[in-house]
Amino acid sequence: MTGGPAISGVLESAVYVDDLDAAEAFYGTLLGLERITRVDGRHVFFRCGDGVVLAFVAEATRLPPSPGGLPVPTHGATGAGHICFAMSAEDLSRMRERLSDAEIEVEADFNWPNGARSIYVRDPGGNSVEFAEPRLWNTA
Amino acid sequence: MTGGPAISGVLESAVYVDDLDAAEAFYGTLLGLERITRVDGRHVFFRCGDGVVLAFVAEATRLPPSPGGLPVPTHGATGAGHICFAMSAEDLSRMRERLSDAEIEVEADFNWPNGARSIYVRDPGGNSVEFAEPRLWNTA
Repeated sequence: MTGGPAISGVLESAVYVDDLDAAEAFYGTLLGLERITRVDGRHVFFRCGDGVVLAFVAEATRLPPSPGGLPVPTHGATGAGHICFAMSAEDLSRMRERLSDAEIEVEADFNWPNGARSIYVRDPGGNSVEFAEPRLWNTA
Repeated sequence: MTGGPAISGVLESAVYVDDLDAAEAFYGTLLGLERITRVDGRHVFFRCGDGVVLAFVAEATRLPPSPGGLPVPTHGATGAGHICFAMSAEDLSRMRERLSDAEIEVEADFNWPNGARSIYVRDPGGNSVEFAEPRLWNTA
């Protein structure tokens, strides 16, 4: 694909949740992501590095756009999704402490064969949220 | 959250698909993402900028890990998810041409109020895949 249209990275990653207040408490307050915008009953968006995390209420995003609105295609998933956040080893340790302080159950905490550490919790929507060292994907 | 554990960005974004060959044709061949690894029947992973796109077969990722395997938590969603890829305006135009050449239906192609362009298609799993200029999220 040399010379093809270049994708520079993932700009938006989506999770589906039921409760936007709970999603804000988790992604905003607990994880420390900056809230960009919220539409009650539909979504709350957060800035994360060069990208954006979109927490949607699937019942709302499955509806077609309003007449006169932008023609944003419908979507909306059910069941546990997955997202992983990049953190340094030091910040992972600090996140583990924060999760403990907040009495969030840590579902798994282990090192991959290449040594990178991953910690897993559930967000309030039941999604599998991972925190990992980026070197997990250093396959070169 | 000053001084809290710092998340540097999204490391992994997940979509759920039924057919890994079709997912590879779409994310690998058509979009030009580098394939990292594949486990038949379960997943295929792609590098994308500083992150990774994970295409999972939900029926497989809902199963608990094998005895003796790493304790990776289960997940697996049903229905249309959403992911958005960052591209420059020039690359977006070239992607639009590539999509046309591949006879991929473009579901929407418009400019947001701040001028940023988004193009939407469906991946073979029915997920809403967007290509957008990163300035879409320049809210400062």
